[in-house]
Amino acid sequence: MADIATRVYNHKWKIDPIVRSMLDTDFYKLLMCQSVFRNKPDTQVRFSLINRSTDIRLADLIDEGELREQLDHIRTLRLTRGESTWLRGNTFYGKRQMFRPDFMAWLEDLQLPPYFLEKREGQYMLTFEGAWPEVMMWEIPALAVLMELRSRAVLADMGKFELQVLYARAMTKLWEKVERLRRLDRLRLADFGTRRRHSFLWQDWCVQAMIEGLGRKFVGTSNCLIAMRRDIEAIGTNAHELPMVYAALADSDEGLRRSPYKVLADWHEEHDGNLRIILPDTYGTKGFLEGAPDWLAGWTGIRIDSGDPAEGAETAIAWWKARGEDPHEKMIIFSDGLDEDKIIELQTRFGDRAKVSFGWGTLLTNDFRGLVPGDALSPFSLVCKAVSANGRPTVKLSDNPNKAMGPADAVARYKRVFGVGEQVAREVIV
Amino acid sequence: MADIATRVYNHKWKIDPIVRSMLDTDFYKLLMCQSVFRNKPDTQVRFSLINRSTDIRLADLIDEGELREQLDHIRTLRLTRGESTWLRGNTFYGKRQMFRPDFMAWLEDLQLPPYFLEKREGQYMLTFEGAWPEVMMWEIPALAVLMELRSRAVLADMGKFELQVLYARAMTKLWEKVERLRRLDRLRLADFGTRRRHSFLWQDWCVQAMIEGLGRKFVGTSNCLIAMRRDIEAIGTNAHELPMVYAALADSDEGLRRSPYKVLADWHEEHDGNLRIILPDTYGTKGFLEGAPDWLAGWTGIRIDSGDPAEGAETAIAWWKARGEDPHEKMIIFSDGLDEDKIIELQTRFGDRAKVSFGWGTLLTNDFRGLVPGDALSPFSLVCKAVSANGRPTVKLSDNPNKAMGPADAVARYKRVFGVGEQVAREVIV
Repeated sequence: MADIATRVYNHKWKIDPIVRSMLDTDFYKLLMCQSVFRNKPDTQVRFSLINRSTDIRLADLIDEGELREQLDHIRTLRLTRGESTWLRGNTFYGKRQMFRPDFMAWLEDLQLPPYFLEKREGQYMLTFEGAWPEVMMWEIPALAVLMELRSRAVLADMGKFELQVLYARAMTKLWEKVERLRRLDRLRLADFGTRRRHSFLWQDWCVQAMIEGLGRKFVGTSNCLIAMRRDIEAIGTNAHELPMVYAALADSDEGLRRSPYKVLADWHEEHDGNLRIILPDTYGTKGFLEGAPDWLAGWTGIRIDSGDPAEGAETAIAWWKARGEDPHEKMIIFSDGLDEDKIIELQTRFGDRAKVSFGWGTLLTNDFRGLVPGDALSPFSLVCKAVSANGRPTVKLSDNPNKAMGPADAVARYKRVFGVGEQVAREVIV
Repeated sequence: MADIATRVYNHKWKIDPIVRSMLDTDFYKLLMCQSVFRNKPDTQVRFSLINRSTDIRLADLIDEGELREQLDHIRTLRLTRGESTWLRGNTFYGKRQMFRPDFMAWLEDLQLPPYFLEKREGQYMLTFEGAWPEVMMWEIPALAVLMELRSRAVLADMGKFELQVLYARAMTKLWEKVERLRRLDRLRLADFGTRRRHSFLWQDWCVQAMIEGLGRKFVGTSNCLIAMRRDIEAIGTNAHELPMVYAALADSDEGLRRSPYKVLADWHEEHDGNLRIILPDTYGTKGFLEGAPDWLAGWTGIRIDSGDPAEGAETAIAWWKARGEDPHEKMIIFSDGLDEDKIIELQTRFGDRAKVSFGWGTLLTNDFRGLVPGDALSPFSLVCKAVSANGRPTVKLSDNPNKAMGPADAVARYKRVFGVGEQVAREVIV
């Protein structure tokens, strides 16, 4: 029997929206947004889309009208009453009322600010400008829209059964990863794949497959909407945008040098436990840890998001030991370019030496490599970053020069201030 | 949105029926039934289930109560008005009114006769007795019920996503076959997989995948219900039960020797064109062709259903040439134990020498080999055969002694009468 209501309901959509909820974003965006809302609400920022995979000519693949429709639709979204209730009433990391009433009141009224879109050399130049707490909320939905429109463009000419078989193959591929991973003792793995997902429905399927296949070894998802709907933990802490903007706002070299610690001092006041996770690589992990105040060694753990992950973990373990901390009590979260081989390798190497956890992104929610001719669905490296704050350019050095960004003279200054020398370049796949 | 009506409708089912229509059977059953209804309506036959794969202990796997429910449900089925309209009004092989009004009137009233079921040594002894035209209609639904109950028994303990991935893998497997097969020039392939299918839904999926993936190279299905619903050709001609019962009814060695030709003489009167397909192997292809009357060489083609298929095709081609016929004008239908490698091999070898066609059965609709632990879903060799007619045992020799059946003394007599000597045994997989 046809479900007439569903069909008629679907008829009403002018577009088939990719992002249908303000909660279809990463949990750490909300945590950071609250921090920014409290500490730097008036900072004017610009975020820009950057496609590191220049061979993927997004403006040739994706229709500009469709892209505008999707972005316009996102600007019509508001936090619903039920979503607000979930954010206000839920327990995150064992703590209730993580979001303060003034922030929630602001978030309930939030409309995402206007966007600026033009085509250049086969790419979309997409920027967002305005107050930091508003603009920052564009990052995840903007990436999700571009990623999914690219998927749709590739899938548009495929037949019904060809499509079904494509997804059958992708499901099989994911399940084979799950079957290998579930043999790992003490595995703790979360979905971090919202921003580079193949599509919303596919991410939702992946999460459900992990729930069934990994059981308690799957600890949650960064996606708030999926966490709410599937009744699992929302996972996340903080990201590079905080130190990048704080650094850009610094008025002196000394202020610049101290800025990454200032970020974490603000964070320290607001959060404890599992939310106290250091992200040390924005301006070089080594220098960051050497110059870190002792109270940072007391934090719960560290997230390794660039460079050689094993080397990063060894550096962290040595640092904790040097500061008189027991690494066995510390959490190491790996979140850069993971696939199951790398997860198995890292869990095997560090599982006995620290509390290890994985934030699995692109190759969880967008591994369609090898499934269509010309690999037209393979993931690519799209980011949406803060590029300026109060008119000054931002800089990221990272532990991988291929992930660095910013104007050359600013990069040179940051390298000098943070004492970053030669770095080993690593291919950025995703 | 939930489709409440569908859910409530499903609640009403005490069982989830495997066979939901009198048309969920092979087309050739209806053709043969009409022939029997006309020529031998009062013959009393017994059909029995025979599991050639004795290591699959069906009575341990399948609950007797569930089996009885399914068989009882089949006895409640009647041809519906729409189904009757389709049979009466449709064009089969370009011909209208293939089914005569008296046969249709009888078929509309048909209720399948009672069944007899007991367990013995881990197997179900399932038999059907009565008038031939009624009893013969049990074969396909009985096999489909046993096959699907076995699938359900194996799947019963699997999780939702484990199941989805299982089907994803099976879909991928089938699609890879389709992708190889569609490269074959002049391929003509039909689904013959009703009797050994994994399940009804799966067969229906396979057929739809073939429609999309093979286009005009997929010529139809033996399953009447699926042919009707998917608006494709119903395919089939005749089977071993006709010569087996005719032979059992013969009163002398001479009558026995002539019986396979008598079957085809009756068929010749009723049908022309693509329905005039010789099935020569019941009592040995070689002797059958040598002793065949010349009018048989004028028939449209031959179906190769046992023995080495290439050898069978060479024998047929040589026979046509010896009888002054042009093999290029003749159809060779391969229907025994096919998989895509064998199809490609046979099409390549004979595609230029005759009109080649394939009836693809078990490994189209039930290839779950290697997809679950212990290969618990691999297909097996279950048949439901006429074992006696008017109190006399039936015999099948085939071109493969592993497919032979009947009491030893009767087999010896048949071998003598039909001049069958040593035969090469070939493994019966499916």
